[in-house]
Amino acid sequence: MPRAKEVIVGVDLGGTSLRALVVSGKNEVLALEKTPTNPKQEPAGLIADIAEVAEEAVRAAGLKMREIRAVSVGAPGSTDPARGVVHHAPNLGWRDVALGPQLKALLHVPVLVDNDVHVGAIGEYALGAGQGARDVVGIFVGTGIGGAIISKGRLLEGSSGGAGELGHTVMMVNGPLCGCGKRGCAEALASRTAMERDVRAAVKKGHKSVVFKIMKEAHKDRMTSSIIVRALKKNDKVMRKVLQRAEFYLGILVANVVNLLDPERVVIGGGIAERLGEDFIAPIRASAFDHFLRHQDFHRVRIVAGQLGDNAGALGAVVLARQRLG
Amino acid sequence: MPRAKEVIVGVDLGGTSLRALVVSGKNEVLALEKTPTNPKQEPAGLIADIAEVAEEAVRAAGLKMREIRAVSVGAPGSTDPARGVVHHAPNLGWRDVALGPQLKALLHVPVLVDNDVHVGAIGEYALGAGQGARDVVGIFVGTGIGGAIISKGRLLEGSSGGAGELGHTVMMVNGPLCGCGKRGCAEALASRTAMERDVRAAVKKGHKSVVFKIMKEAHKDRMTSSIIVRALKKNDKVMRKVLQRAEFYLGILVANVVNLLDPERVVIGGGIAERLGEDFIAPIRASAFDHFLRHQDFHRVRIVAGQLGDNAGALGAVVLARQRLG
Repeated sequence: MPRAKEVIVGVDLGGTSLRALVVSGKNEVLALEKTPTNPKQEPAGLIADIAEVAEEAVRAAGLKMREIRAVSVGAPGSTDPARGVVHHAPNLGWRDVALGPQLKALLHVPVLVDNDVHVGAIGEYALGAGQGARDVVGIFVGTGIGGAIISKGRLLEGSSGGAGELGHTVMMVNGPLCGCGKRGCAEALASRTAMERDVRAAVKKGHKSVVFKIMKEAHKDRMTSSIIVRALKKNDKVMRKVLQRAEFYLGILVANVVNLLDPERVVIGGGIAERLGEDFIAPIRASAFDHFLRHQDFHRVRIVAGQLGDNAGALGAVVLARQRLG
Repeated sequence: MPRAKEVIVGVDLGGTSLRALVVSGKNEVLALEKTPTNPKQEPAGLIADIAEVAEEAVRAAGLKMREIRAVSVGAPGSTDPARGVVHHAPNLGWRDVALGPQLKALLHVPVLVDNDVHVGAIGEYALGAGQGARDVVGIFVGTGIGGAIISKGRLLEGSSGGAGELGHTVMMVNGPLCGCGKRGCAEALASRTAMERDVRAAVKKGHKSVVFKIMKEAHKDRMTSSIIVRALKKNDKVMRKVLQRAEFYLGILVANVVNLLDPERVVIGGGIAERLGEDFIAPIRASAFDHFLRHQDFHRVRIVAGQLGDNAGALGAVVLARQRLG
């Protein structure tokens, strides 16, 4: 039986699914509950859903909410951890939602809030691919590119909780248009969204690709990481070339953060990294090495895939809560 | 009379001059000594010069070396602060020089070593243009571009003392060749070296410029910041256009670090920033604003010129020593 008040509920509030993990003081997962996210409702409705999933998970762990030390949520957007506010979460349609205070009013336990990529990186740092290192950069490649910086074991928050946005560092002046309105951001060069754009452009130019056939068969309207993997298995040349280009740019992005932040480890997470593992990481590493500034970095910096998969965010939210609550 | 053992000697070991400041516990400058750097000697010779300048400065302050708490040196290269070693200082021709231990053997006081840009940024943070902010990024534009990150009032060292190398983040894939061997680094786009290259290219193309005439008259073989200022005063169109381009890229660099690190203040130092002040900063700010990701950053982040000039490094070395010695 876990000691009372050591158990924390970690919640990963994703654009597509909502996941709550009940985690002991020894980082054992006591229970897991998940449900699809329904973003087509008012924030209050989704916050009620979060409360419900958290309560179910606590019940499933054989505990009562009053035995829980805190609920810690990773949210898909910019957050103010000090006030528990989600500033802007485009996938949820949220602007300045007081998630922390509102969830606390429902659950009557302390609630902590941070960005989903921040908590995912802290998860990998403490319990996954970042273990053993103190200075870690997490890069999550999905529909966008997110990042988080861990310095001496602590998340670098910046002055307003916004640090880590490496997806929107400009890497190619006058490059392709990014969703943020700028040109040549890392995200516009190497995210899944950028890859899908490049595959579409290649097909439009007359190159043959099975990507859209696979998407149709799978009833997907986006080029998800599972689509990418299936196209590669069919030896789709367009897919391979587009992926290689993204890997090249991701390598430069890795080198930029290594040159700037001098970490010991870079953890690359997200669907593609999980599914392709070393097949994805090795070319990124090769490109990064071509752009390293310091000779010692070649021997010292390890570039690895994330290990925690879908649990990274919820586990990391628990670890971060424990750091902050002391 | 300053209290014994509160006084620290800050040394700025520059490629052209060597400067020692004797600084009280209240950050009053008690004495200043300087001498030209002679890099055409063995490291031991230059280290003896440092010891001599430090001793002269201490004498000029009416103190004895045994009354000094520490000597803290900013060196122009990559350093290992924990061991007091300068890994690589190209301007001095140094590789793996044990500056700290060797200087300590001469002076018999504790010696601290860090990178010159790191100490300059800490100086601006504590005593110059960064005052009042806790999260500050320093960008120094000279023959190269150096940087330093201050998070919650402490220098971000990275795992091996190398953090801050924002001059070698790639901003233009396939851009102009950098001194480091890569292409499209910030330094290859916006340093004085890059500007001189661009002026030369414009003149070669047939554009008229007074820059080289001014350099010849001033007996300079490099386009120093004073040459730039003189050319601008003569309304040299090539110089103005080249400077504007550099300012545009510096703005993107500023936006990249603001997006990534979420500081409250960005301090831009170096000769051009000092001489041109707001004329240099305003266009950088405008370009940065065009590349900011977060709306709140427009109101919150201040982009300013450094204030401490040639004393930034030596003063910062003192501040950093006081932080480290506790």
